Amino acid sequence: MSRRIATAAAAAILVILVAVGVAVGADNDRSNDVRRAIDGGTAKNVILLIGDGMSDSEITIARNYTAGAAGRLAVDGFPLTGQMTTYSVFPDGTPDYDPESASTSTAWSTGSKTVDGRIGTNRLDQDLTSILDLARRAGYRTGNVSTADITDATPAGPMAHIASRGCAGPLNMASCAQDRKSVGGLGSIAEQAVDHRVDVLLGGGKARFDQVIPAGEGPYAGRTVIQQAQALGYSLATDKAGLAAAQPGTKLLGLFTPSHMSLDWGGLAAKKPPAGPGRCQTGLKPGTEPTLADMTRKALELLDARVRGPGSDQPGFFLQVEGASIDKRAHAAQPCEQIGESVDFDRAVRLALDFAGKNKNTLVIVTGDHAHTGQIVETDATPAGASSILVTNEGAQMMVTYGTASIDPATGLPAGSQEHTGAQIRVAALGPQAANVVGLIDQTELFTIMKRALQVK
Amino acid sequence: MSRRIATAAAAAILVILVAVGVAVGADNDRSNDVRRAIDGGTAKNVILLIGDGMSDSEITIARNYTAGAAGRLAVDGFPLTGQMTTYSVFPDGTPDYDPESASTSTAWSTGSKTVDGRIGTNRLDQDLTSILDLARRAGYRTGNVSTADITDATPAGPMAHIASRGCAGPLNMASCAQDRKSVGGLGSIAEQAVDHRVDVLLGGGKARFDQVIPAGEGPYAGRTVIQQAQALGYSLATDKAGLAAAQPGTKLLGLFTPSHMSLDWGGLAAKKPPAGPGRCQTGLKPGTEPTLADMTRKALELLDARVRGPGSDQPGFFLQVEGASIDKRAHAAQPCEQIGESVDFDRAVRLALDFAGKNKNTLVIVTGDHAHTGQIVETDATPAGASSILVTNEGAQMMVTYGTASIDPATGLPAGSQEHTGAQIRVAALGPQAANVVGLIDQTELFTIMKRALQVK
Repeated sequence: MSRRIATAAAAAILVILVAVGVAVGADNDRSNDVRRAIDGGTAKNVILLIGDGMSDSEITIARNYTAGAAGRLAVDGFPLTGQMTTYSVFPDGTPDYDPESASTSTAWSTGSKTVDGRIGTNRLDQDLTSILDLARRAGYRTGNVSTADITDATPAGPMAHIASRGCAGPLNMASCAQDRKSVGGLGSIAEQAVDHRVDVLLGGGKARFDQVIPAGEGPYAGRTVIQQAQALGYSLATDKAGLAAAQPGTKLLGLFTPSHMSLDWGGLAAKKPPAGPGRCQTGLKPGTEPTLADMTRKALELLDARVRGPGSDQPGFFLQVEGASIDKRAHAAQPCEQIGESVDFDRAVRLALDFAGKNKNTLVIVTGDHAHTGQIVETDATPAGASSILVTNEGAQMMVTYGTASIDPATGLPAGSQEHTGAQIRVAALGPQAANVVGLIDQTELFTIMKRALQVK
Repeated sequence: MSRRIATAAAAAILVILVAVGVAVGADNDRSNDVRRAIDGGTAKNVILLIGDGMSDSEITIARNYTAGAAGRLAVDGFPLTGQMTTYSVFPDGTPDYDPESASTSTAWSTGSKTVDGRIGTNRLDQDLTSILDLARRAGYRTGNVSTADITDATPAGPMAHIASRGCAGPLNMASCAQDRKSVGGLGSIAEQAVDHRVDVLLGGGKARFDQVIPAGEGPYAGRTVIQQAQALGYSLATDKAGLAAAQPGTKLLGLFTPSHMSLDWGGLAAKKPPAGPGRCQTGLKPGTEPTLADMTRKALELLDARVRGPGSDQPGFFLQVEGASIDKRAHAAQPCEQIGESVDFDRAVRLALDFAGKNKNTLVIVTGDHAHTGQIVETDATPAGASSILVTNEGAQMMVTYGTASIDPATGLPAGSQEHTGAQIRVAALGPQAANVVGLIDQTELFTIMKRALQVK
C-alpha cells in the first residue's frame, strides 16, 4: 500500500515540478516587511512554543516529507529569526556542551544556566524565579501544555523548583529528599504544578497525579494529587470530549494518558541497513485523546477568556506549549514518529500564529530546547548508524540517519538511545520584543525577552 | 604536551567560569539595533563568504573550542540572521534533499536549482547567468578566493558554465565534451576563470593552470592556462610574499599550492572508540603559504583600490570568499582540521566586517553551502560512528562525532567519506538588502538579493 501511494504521489508531483522546472527565489525586497515586524513595545500575552529536540534538521525533515523541499510549515512563517546556544553547566560551573531538557527549560524559564537534570534550581540547589512565577504574581494567567507527562522536564522548567527532573510525583522523591514538604520543601513536580495554581495544565502523566501523597508530606497527605488539585479549585479532564467541554471560570487539569501521550504516526523504524523506501503510517492516535493542537486551541480559549470578557484591561497570559515527542522519537530513531509529532507541533504553532494575528499584543516565540541526532543524507549513503528511507509527499526519497548510538550487530537496531546534540538551534518570533531573537542569543535570554515583553520583574 | 596545555588552560579558565557562575543573557531591548541594521538601499560592494559545509553544528564546534560556549566568533557578529534551504534537483527535476557544492554554488550564483555536480548550468545543460557575470558586465570588479583548488565547485559556481565540476583544467574535459572550445564551448573551469577576466583569483589548484591546452582547443592551444592568463594581462603570485607584493593595476592570479591549500590544525582524527581527550595541534601550515585571511585582505585591498582612487564614482566589486576545507576535513572526520579551517574562515569574516564598518555601502553575507556531519554529544556517549574528545580552550571536554560513514571494524576508522547533510542552514548578513536573509529563504534567493543590492540585471 505504501508503495502504491508513493508511486501515485510521485506521478502527480512530478508534473508540477517539471512544469516549474527550477525554483527561483522571491524577487522582492523584504526590508520593509522585516522593519514592520519589529515591535519594541510590551505584550499582553506570551506564547512560547518548544519543539523538544527540534532544530533545523528536524524542521527540514518534517518539511521535506509533508510540504516538500520548497514548501513551508507554520514554523517557517515567523518574520524574525536567529540562532540560540543551548549549553548547560556541570556542578563546578564549567560548560557542558550537550545539554538536556531540564537544564534547557530552566535556562529559558529562569535566565540561569544550570546542571543537567535540575528543574528551576541552580547548581547550588537554590530556587530560581521563573517567568511563570513572575507572570502569575503580576496577575497574568498561566498555561502549560505538553504531549509528554506534564511533569516531564520541559513543562516542569517554568513551574517547579526541584533538584531532579525524576522527582515527578509524590512517590518519586528518592533523589530529592531536601524538596519534600516534610522538611520544608515544595514537594514533587506534580504537587508544585497545582500548588503554583497554573491555570491550564494539559498533557499526559495522569499516573503521577494518581499517586497518594505520603503521610507527613503537607496538607494534602493521604490524598492523590488529583484530589489536591480539585481541593485547589481545578476541574479535571481526562479525554478529548472532556477537554472540549471545559469552560472558563475554573482552573483546568487535563491528564489524558498515564504517561506520555500517544503517537499519531509510525512505521519504518531506523536500522542498519536502512529501512524502506516506504511511506509513514498515519492516524494511529486514539480518537479519544486530544492532539497537541487540540490542547493548544483550548488553552488559548481558556486563557484568553478573561482578556476578552469583563475585566479585559487585566493582564493577559503566559502559555508554554511543548511538542515533546519530537525528541523522544528521535531518541528512539523513529523518523516517522518524529515527523508525526513535528506535524502536530506545527499545527499548534499555526494556532498560535492565528491567535497573534487577531491579538497583535501577543509575543510568540518558537524554538527547540536542544538539537538532536537525525540527519538527511543521500539515499545511497552507508551511514554508521540506523537509517530509514522515506518516500515523501512529493514522491522523492529522503534518507534520515541516526548516528549517535551504536548499532547492535545482532539486530541491526540501535543498541541504545540516540543522543541530544550540542549545536546552536533556530529561534523565531513575532510580536512585541520579537526582534530580540535576531542574531545569536543564548537560551537564557528568552527569559529576559519574555520578562521585558510582559513588564514583570 | 597536549595534556599539559589542556590542564593549564582548564585551571585558568575555571577561575573565570566559577567567578561568572551562571551565564545571564543580555537584558537590553535590541529592537532598535535590529531596526537600524535594516538598509533597503543599494550596495557599492558585495562580499559573499561561504564556509563550505559550515552550519550551526560546525560553528558551535569552532566556537566552543576557541572562544568558549559563551564566547563569540566573527560569524556570530552579524545583525540580521535567518535560515536557508539548500536542496538541489535530480535530472528529472524532482528534489534531491542532500545537495553538494556544485549545485549549491550554482544556486546562489545564478538563482536556479540544478543537478549535483553541475556548474553554472541547469539540468538541461543550458548556461545560466551568474551574479559575477552580471557584476562584471555592469563594470564591477570581481574576485574569487578559496582555500581549495580555485577551480573547485564552490569557486567555480559564479565564474564558470560547464556540465561537470570535474572538468577543472584543459586536460580534465572527458565528461564535458560539449564544453570543449573546439566544439564552440567555453572550455575548462580554469580557462573560463581567466577568460571571464575575474580581477582577483586566489587559492590552490596551480596544477590545473599548469596544464597545456590541447591542440585545437581555442586561441591559447599549446600554452598553459597560466600563460593564457598572462596573455590576458594577469600577474601571477605563487607564495605569500608574492601575494603581499601584488599591486593594483593588473588582474591577479594567485595559485599557492598544486591542489587544495595546506591545513593549519591537526591531530585527534575521529575513530571508534573515540580519540582523545586531547588538544588540537596548531601552526602546521607552511609559512610561505598565505591563509584565507591573508588572501581576503589582499583581495579587498586590490578590489577596493579603484573605488578609493581616481574614478571612485565607478562601481565597486563583487567578491566571493570560500573556507573550503571546513567541508573537506568534515568529510575526513578530522575535527581539529575542521576547526582550524573554521578559525581561518572566521578571520576572513572579521576582515569583511571591518571593511564594511569603514565602507557602509557594502553588503556582507556569511553562510554555508550545505550542512555537514559533525555533531556534539556527551563525552560518555557511544556513537555509531567515529568520534574525538577535544579539550577546549576553556578547559572543558567536547566530543565530536561523525556518523554518516560506516566504521571499518579492522581499524576503527571511517570506511569512507562522511556525507553532506540536508538540513537548512544559517545565513547572516549586514549592509544594504541584508534584511532579506531574515526568516526562511532558499539558497537561490541569495542571487536575487545580491542582484538587487548591486542593481544589476
